[in-house]
Amino acid sequence: MLLVQKFGGSSLATTDHIRRVAERVARTVAEGHQVVVVVSAMGDSTDDLLAKARDLSTTLPPREMDALLATGEMQSIALMAMALETAGVPARSFTGPQAGIRTDGQHGNARITGVEPRRLRQALALGLTPVVAGFQGEGPDGDITTLGRGGSDLTAIALAGALEADRCEIYSDVAGVFTADPRVVPDAAKLAHLPYSDMLELAAQGAQVLQTKAVEYAWDRNVTIHARSTFEEEDPGTVIDGHPSVTLSPVTAVALNTHIAKIGLTGVPDAPGVAARLFEALAAKGINVDLIIQSLSHDQLNDMAFTVAEADTDRAVAEAERVLAELHGRAVVVDRGVAKVSAVGTGMLGRPGVAARVFRALADAGINIELIGTSEIKISCLIAREHAHRALKAVHEAFNLGEGAIQVEE
Amino acid sequence: MLLVQKFGGSSLATTDHIRRVAERVARTVAEGHQVVVVVSAMGDSTDDLLAKARDLSTTLPPREMDALLATGEMQSIALMAMALETAGVPARSFTGPQAGIRTDGQHGNARITGVEPRRLRQALALGLTPVVAGFQGEGPDGDITTLGRGGSDLTAIALAGALEADRCEIYSDVAGVFTADPRVVPDAAKLAHLPYSDMLELAAQGAQVLQTKAVEYAWDRNVTIHARSTFEEEDPGTVIDGHPSVTLSPVTAVALNTHIAKIGLTGVPDAPGVAARLFEALAAKGINVDLIIQSLSHDQLNDMAFTVAEADTDRAVAEAERVLAELHGRAVVVDRGVAKVSAVGTGMLGRPGVAARVFRALADAGINIELIGTSEIKISCLIAREHAHRALKAVHEAFNLGEGAIQVEE
Repeated sequence: MLLVQKFGGSSLATTDHIRRVAERVARTVAEGHQVVVVVSAMGDSTDDLLAKARDLSTTLPPREMDALLATGEMQSIALMAMALETAGVPARSFTGPQAGIRTDGQHGNARITGVEPRRLRQALALGLTPVVAGFQGEGPDGDITTLGRGGSDLTAIALAGALEADRCEIYSDVAGVFTADPRVVPDAAKLAHLPYSDMLELAAQGAQVLQTKAVEYAWDRNVTIHARSTFEEEDPGTVIDGHPSVTLSPVTAVALNTHIAKIGLTGVPDAPGVAARLFEALAAKGINVDLIIQSLSHDQLNDMAFTVAEADTDRAVAEAERVLAELHGRAVVVDRGVAKVSAVGTGMLGRPGVAARVFRALADAGINIELIGTSEIKISCLIAREHAHRALKAVHEAFNLGEGAIQVEE
Repeated sequence: MLLVQKFGGSSLATTDHIRRVAERVARTVAEGHQVVVVVSAMGDSTDDLLAKARDLSTTLPPREMDALLATGEMQSIALMAMALETAGVPARSFTGPQAGIRTDGQHGNARITGVEPRRLRQALALGLTPVVAGFQGEGPDGDITTLGRGGSDLTAIALAGALEADRCEIYSDVAGVFTADPRVVPDAAKLAHLPYSDMLELAAQGAQVLQTKAVEYAWDRNVTIHARSTFEEEDPGTVIDGHPSVTLSPVTAVALNTHIAKIGLTGVPDAPGVAARLFEALAAKGINVDLIIQSLSHDQLNDMAFTVAEADTDRAVAEAERVLAELHGRAVVVDRGVAKVSAVGTGMLGRPGVAARVFRALADAGINIELIGTSEIKISCLIAREHAHRALKAVHEAFNLGEGAIQVEE
């Protein structure tokens, strides 16, 4: 088999970690497989580079930040290639550009526009194990561009797609995808399998295992992802592919996102185009809005509220203030103390009553719901952040997702 | 004017150093000049990478070592570009490959085979200050190759040649070229000017200011080098170019090399081809031999001795032992406690008696000469290392090179 194996920064924190990962890869090679290794930067090495950049620049120019941060992965590939050689596996390192990862050139958050893995194929044909720098690619002008959060996963999946690998294994210190965050819900169960659709929605709702754009890319190219633990080799992990979920439960897993904020506008006119004006202004600034509610208060004036990512809060408030002034509205109110709990599952398609079960679980726990958002395979509820962990447990419990509960998989 | 300014690792030890260098470059730009900046890796960052590599590999594969070590300069260019922006100078970083430095692909000690500075010309035309990673270039197969010791100087000189820059300024914590190492000879005088020929011989004899291959490249392309102090802006430094020296002294400067060893073979047959056999064997291993002496001892047996760089000693001894066994010679004797003092100057051409003055100076100081080597512009003497500093002072004094002495320059 041809496998792509990706190892994240926490699996590469020290040279000792690198040595252990190399030995793990060596065992896979010894079993007769071909392996392409994708690595992130070592542990906290990125933080050190960021500190130096912040010391020298307040603007952090994106092109130079990419040139700087990409060196972390470049160090990892050379060190990993050496460790593999020491473990008896002839290896060769490749930067993102050398591995043929082409991007649209957008610094800091580039999109992969093509993969030309000629040099990787050559290395494999010579019996060498390629070690590729994740998170980076070459823009149209030959500049280094980075792929944004979760970029190394995306590199691995893109290479697996281009090389038609049998599987893309994503290794981390988490042993797969769970029915809920096991740090919050101790009896959360590990899922043996998950369809792309559910994984995409879970990632969008705040699950940290994989980033949405990596899942989207895998879905589009039909790359089978295998999320596994780096140092617990016996653990089977979670397989993510295009097969439908076979669980009997309408909900596959429950996600929690505490990195959001709610922004409210009060006393805006109840007239056509008011909402459009606000959300167009936000979109123009590249701010993603998640949940939205609009309610008629009184005197032909509306209240509106929406949620944004925590990092976008200040910019979103600034835009909201600007639009509010134009509309002669009353006030902008920010609530940074919110959280969103989401039940996700392709299994809820065509099954009525799932939303009601979520609302009932929260109500029974005495937790007030501030906003609701739904898609065909997701129900999200905005709540006060102080209730976040209890809410996650309550919804998880309501669908019998715990390890003690019966899980039906093929 | 178009200037290339190269800053070494000690000038870039911390972010504070980088900021000061950026401000210096900004002043040059403010004077109306175009500048191409070439930088080395920050201070001791290379040592940290080396330690990690040694922890993971005993063989240190040259291709991966190049990939690893080149990241040091890649970090410097991004940080320097940010610091320049902060100092009000729009800048753009370029790796060696991006700057068009092409090499023969020999890892660890690559030769520059071509320079295609298209992107640097574009940047200059846009009013941007290019910042180029020294010490690195791209081999024929697209791999990163490093240029060996003094490689960043070579990068700067090669770019100055290709861009037809008016001058190549090499900045370091030494303010230029001195008549002797001022740490050993306190009254050593700074030379305002020096021809390539003298600089090349001085570098070959152990002067640390510039490496021989950088000087050779400059001489070949007729690039004027200006060696200056990074943080003493008023210091005029030393200009190195093709003009002959105008000093009245036959000796321009005196160099000392303590990183050598003497290897002797005793009791080898006095027959044709014996020396050839030994030195061919050493050459085949890439070991450079410097001084050589052969003397008839007795019974038709010869003694031979030669010097090599300290780093080559063990390999040279191994070869000598092998050849000695074949020749049924008596013994190989190693002396690691030697030093070489060299008087260098184009001024000694056609002036008799210079060698005698060197020998007389050492004799008066009670220092025994073990081996002698001469070229048309150099006299080298091998002595016991314990006398090295006294020998340097004695020869320096014998030619009145001190700061108190009269220096005649145009």
